[in-house]
Amino acid sequence: MSGEPRVVAMGGGHGLYATLTALRGLTPHLTAVVTVADDGGSSGRLRSEMGIVPPGDLRMALSALCADTEWGRTWRDVLQWRFSTDGPLDGHAMGNLLIAALWDRTDDVVDGLAWVGRLLQSQGKVLPLSVDPLEVSALVEGPHGSHEVVGQVAVATADGRIQELRLAPENPRVPQETIDAIDHADLVVLGPGSWYTSVLTHFKVAQVAAALERAASRCVVVLNVGHDDEETAGTDRIDDVRALRHAAPWFVPADVLIDVAHGTEGALEDEVAAWGARLRIGDVCSKASADAHDATALRRELVAIARERGLTVTAGAGGVAG
Amino acid sequence: MSGEPRVVAMGGGHGLYATLTALRGLTPHLTAVVTVADDGGSSGRLRSEMGIVPPGDLRMALSALCADTEWGRTWRDVLQWRFSTDGPLDGHAMGNLLIAALWDRTDDVVDGLAWVGRLLQSQGKVLPLSVDPLEVSALVEGPHGSHEVVGQVAVATADGRIQELRLAPENPRVPQETIDAIDHADLVVLGPGSWYTSVLTHFKVAQVAAALERAASRCVVVLNVGHDDEETAGTDRIDDVRALRHAAPWFVPADVLIDVAHGTEGALEDEVAAWGARLRIGDVCSKASADAHDATALRRELVAIARERGLTVTAGAGGVAG
Repeated sequence: MSGEPRVVAMGGGHGLYATLTALRGLTPHLTAVVTVADDGGSSGRLRSEMGIVPPGDLRMALSALCADTEWGRTWRDVLQWRFSTDGPLDGHAMGNLLIAALWDRTDDVVDGLAWVGRLLQSQGKVLPLSVDPLEVSALVEGPHGSHEVVGQVAVATADGRIQELRLAPENPRVPQETIDAIDHADLVVLGPGSWYTSVLTHFKVAQVAAALERAASRCVVVLNVGHDDEETAGTDRIDDVRALRHAAPWFVPADVLIDVAHGTEGALEDEVAAWGARLRIGDVCSKASADAHDATALRRELVAIARERGLTVTAGAGGVAG
Repeated sequence: MSGEPRVVAMGGGHGLYATLTALRGLTPHLTAVVTVADDGGSSGRLRSEMGIVPPGDLRMALSALCADTEWGRTWRDVLQWRFSTDGPLDGHAMGNLLIAALWDRTDDVVDGLAWVGRLLQSQGKVLPLSVDPLEVSALVEGPHGSHEVVGQVAVATADGRIQELRLAPENPRVPQETIDAIDHADLVVLGPGSWYTSVLTHFKVAQVAAALERAASRCVVVLNVGHDDEETAGTDRIDDVRALRHAAPWFVPADVLIDVAHGTEGALEDEVAAWGARLRIGDVCSKASADAHDATALRRELVAIARERGLTVTAGAGGVAG
């Protein structure tokens, strides 16, 4: 394929931040599709005070897409900066407030985000999974049987194994731009991130799940590098694959990228093979944090995958400072 | 004189916004010197919650200096945009929050403002009158004798005639950049604006007053166009001139610009002549608001004054959308 490829990265929070940092500059046609289920901290308070879609995950994505110049890096830091006071502004992230301002000005979630992107001279587009605020809940298996846990923060920190993930509203409004981005993507990168609340949520929205099914042969699933993040404590990456297969039995991605630390796990290899996806093993774990991807390494692997598919990416351009 | 002139505009609030809008694009060396005594609204709350210099007048100046492009105009509107909620964010101006963020990041009032200017690709510099928050108070003559009124909002809305203006601290710290800007200016424009709390305040800071004395022969004083703004109710422009002469007896500007509506007032002409300044009469009042200058007309008059002094300004460039 010739021309600059269209790449979509899906997820939320720090995981999506890492993917976007890795992908930034590879193509001018980079789009983030972002969960909007956050109910904690600054996002949770804005959601409650203003009745808006929680901006936190969107802000993280916009930060990752700031240019790798002094101007861009300063904007990135300013978006992520939080007030630290003894008063009511304490904890609010600057970027959340900026998004809220543009939503008020445009009265449109997608158009408001496009304007924030323009104001920041963003290196890609940011689209929401839904224009309705989402609420995740989960059936969690604890020591005394199963119980329901409500809210992203509660689910992500619940003590026990998640059996089932639910989303409210069940049929949120999905922007046409989001569906179009997935449909027209040459490459869709799903994950890493909080497996249930940032990755599997995308499969819980019927229209997006359908688009993912259509896009499966263009999808790379990036598994988490850690073994013991809070949300999936007591489970392992093989359980994440099983959870995804359970949530979307019809979805078979082209590639699954795992860290070398998981590369010797025969059971994981077998699971991916049974799924029908190609396993790719890369040395992608951050040397500084056992729970995070190294942006440069992740970029190298994603570039290799893109090139294997005949996509022309400009690996020299852009940076991975993140 | 050849080369692009250095122009400084001094004041605060809506008056300075009008001057900067009129001057924007005439020269790349445009600097605003701004009062920092606001104690009302968003500024007052930030001042109290964060212990910072009140950002409101600085935000107005930065807004006026946004480029006259769709990008710049959108930033201008976003800076001026205020939250409207039932919660604690209500009334906060977006630009005030952005300034607060950069002050926290740089830990320096002047450097923080320079960074906000860079992030917004501002068409000029914004400097504070002082790096210490200021408090204005006034001795006001009321129906039952004189009484002291404390705070910018209280002074600006006090019922009675202001007899004396005071500033606390008496010797606030003035940035060297502010003094340098006035010292090196080819043209200094003072006013319009709330006469006591935005214009005369500059003469109450000893170092700035001294710089203004040195710059007097390069100064234009722009009188207000209205007759009955709240702060100087019951007085007239001639009283404003007298108040300025009283506050700074040693200060004689080169030019005084008044609106044609005041041009037939012989007493005002006599007062300006006695002062030793040249009176310039222009049709500068806004057709939409009797209390505001028309930016295009003000620009025309300031360009004429600059050219009479041999300054080369690029009257064609920039716009006056405000």
